[in-house]
Amino acid sequence: MRYLTLEELEKKYIVGKVEQFDQKNDMYRRSRWQPEVRGLWAKLWEESPPQNKPGYTLKDRALENALWYIENGFAVGNSKEGYGLYSWESGPTDKYHVLPSDLKEKVTDPAEMSRIVKKVARLAGADLVGICQLDRRWLYSHIYDCRTREYKVLEVPPEINYAIAFAVEMDHDLIKTSPTCIGGAGAGLGYSKHAYTAGILAEFIRNLGYKAIPAGNTTGLSVPIAISAGLGELGRHGMLITYEFGPRVRLAKVLTGLPLQPDTPVEFGVTQFCEKCKKCAQHCPAQAIHYGERTDKPLNISNNPGVLKWPIDAEKCLRFWVRNGSTCGNCIRVCPFNKEPGWLHDMVKWGVSDLPWLDSFFVWTDGLFGYDKQLRPEEYWAKMKS
Amino acid sequence: MRYLTLEELEKKYIVGKVEQFDQKNDMYRRSRWQPEVRGLWAKLWEESPPQNKPGYTLKDRALENALWYIENGFAVGNSKEGYGLYSWESGPTDKYHVLPSDLKEKVTDPAEMSRIVKKVARLAGADLVGICQLDRRWLYSHIYDCRTREYKVLEVPPEINYAIAFAVEMDHDLIKTSPTCIGGAGAGLGYSKHAYTAGILAEFIRNLGYKAIPAGNTTGLSVPIAISAGLGELGRHGMLITYEFGPRVRLAKVLTGLPLQPDTPVEFGVTQFCEKCKKCAQHCPAQAIHYGERTDKPLNISNNPGVLKWPIDAEKCLRFWVRNGSTCGNCIRVCPFNKEPGWLHDMVKWGVSDLPWLDSFFVWTDGLFGYDKQLRPEEYWAKMKS
Repeated sequence: MRYLTLEELEKKYIVGKVEQFDQKNDMYRRSRWQPEVRGLWAKLWEESPPQNKPGYTLKDRALENALWYIENGFAVGNSKEGYGLYSWESGPTDKYHVLPSDLKEKVTDPAEMSRIVKKVARLAGADLVGICQLDRRWLYSHIYDCRTREYKVLEVPPEINYAIAFAVEMDHDLIKTSPTCIGGAGAGLGYSKHAYTAGILAEFIRNLGYKAIPAGNTTGLSVPIAISAGLGELGRHGMLITYEFGPRVRLAKVLTGLPLQPDTPVEFGVTQFCEKCKKCAQHCPAQAIHYGERTDKPLNISNNPGVLKWPIDAEKCLRFWVRNGSTCGNCIRVCPFNKEPGWLHDMVKWGVSDLPWLDSFFVWTDGLFGYDKQLRPEEYWAKMKS
Repeated sequence: MRYLTLEELEKKYIVGKVEQFDQKNDMYRRSRWQPEVRGLWAKLWEESPPQNKPGYTLKDRALENALWYIENGFAVGNSKEGYGLYSWESGPTDKYHVLPSDLKEKVTDPAEMSRIVKKVARLAGADLVGICQLDRRWLYSHIYDCRTREYKVLEVPPEINYAIAFAVEMDHDLIKTSPTCIGGAGAGLGYSKHAYTAGILAEFIRNLGYKAIPAGNTTGLSVPIAISAGLGELGRHGMLITYEFGPRVRLAKVLTGLPLQPDTPVEFGVTQFCEKCKKCAQHCPAQAIHYGERTDKPLNISNNPGVLKWPIDAEKCLRFWVRNGSTCGNCIRVCPFNKEPGWLHDMVKWGVSDLPWLDSFFVWTDGLFGYDKQLRPEEYWAKMKS
């Protein structure tokens, strides 16, 4: 594990001018307004009945819907639609437990406050937590609400200058069944967890008398914020790779004006490893993952220029979801960094970090041991029997 | 661990006619309508500013408020006030993930369905899960909504005939600080967790095409339901004592018509142990816990007759909360069954279950080792530093 200065981090990832990303251009939102892809999202969810096929039956879909429930049902954000876990203020129904608004915790030691905030985040379900100065390049320029179709400039008050980035682990067995509905349930549970955590953490800070904006995929790009906060490195599949869980996490953040102490970005061999390993690209049923070298050239409006990365073709990805009848997480499932804890995997991680000339060997053994194999839906449910 | 038939369970606890409890008579609700105690609850929360006293400062209150956030902000139930985690139907905002209502899972094997339901409950955060036939004696006769002041007969549809009882563990260190606001935060986190779990579990069942009613303290009495479902025994402090966590849990349930297989009630020496051990009564700052033998005589309208138990004086309990400036969990904190996992405690639990003549010795050693000591608020926050 090596620590990077902010200059080293900038040099590693930034090769041009980074414009703030317009949320309207993410694939989820494009399917609401862009003629070429309009209706894909609706088709996936509203016109996709259960099938008589393991992993896509009523039971599997019920699991998926249920584990998405908190995110889908209670995590509305700063929109006109109502109050939710990503709202920017304390809620109207929370009237019994809100302190008078003129009280404000005096922060004399931001390092101490950072430890407290991290502990509260963990109490509320976060598995990894890091802090960074808010880099406004990673905020969306505009936000687009899929439910209300409201589109507007995003205005984050100037006193908001820190981001608390956190990750929640996704269940190993659920993800292992990707690309079935059970795998989709793994993603949904991650979303539900981080909505819960973000809401609680923001409410803690608001009760201390400071602004706090809880956010899942809302407000800004979670991956660069998490990288700045020291949670991991960018992988070929476009996702954050953490040391502890690999890419098997969901990311969220709370933006705040509470004085905090930033953490340090890290690297542990991911970039070099991903250059050798192309497992995610090979196992991508949509062939949406780039096989070549890192580039900042966009494939379409869902990629943001200026950042050196392996670009993802989000259009291909979403089109596969629709054919599949659920979301897909094969790139997470087969990633060699997606491992359960254990001394052997810890040793390999040390090797990846410190002996990069062994990377190809590690990729080869990963396949040899069958780590990229799917857990069949029938096996998943059978495991429940014990 | 011994298993009890339903007849043995009945004989152990029931000594007279059990009337359904009117929710209006619980202490929380009485403080809304009964002249003698009116306003106590409001006084506790709305007129109780942070103090310059460890465990009661702004930081401590912020923690408490934040960890209650999900229960207080999102767990409205079957009332006019809106949609929440205890609502009886899928939500209006959950429109992307609701299956057509004419689909229904065919249950040919209730035992298999029970395993599935338990696994989903655990995925959604439950630490213990059990199932029982719904015994309608434990449903409230009437419900009273503190927010809307709506009071009505509770009507649970006749096809609802099972209860899935579950427990979520409360954080050991938080509870250890009782009766401070940090201890109250431990209770709040338990409530927030079980609201989240109950909502997800109910949504799973509804997606299978069956009715499901998620409930925290709403709908019916959680303790007798949990006992029937095999989660534990009744303790002197009026709470469920589980084998795994003692009383350091919060209880909730989902009532449903989904065909399931009931579990078996258990006993592991709690009743005899509580007869000897009076630690909860001794450490109760309100002196609200009965020192004598079990009885079914009520102390006031918050006790329900017909059940053999050590009655709690809920009026004294709530009055102490108001004096204290937060809730209190001393009876949980000092209970010898409240232990972290470990081989020594497992051995003692075996002893309590199988060698009841040693109970007084176990009570004595528990005090000797200082297990009933409070974790001081300063120590709690200091622990965060590491």
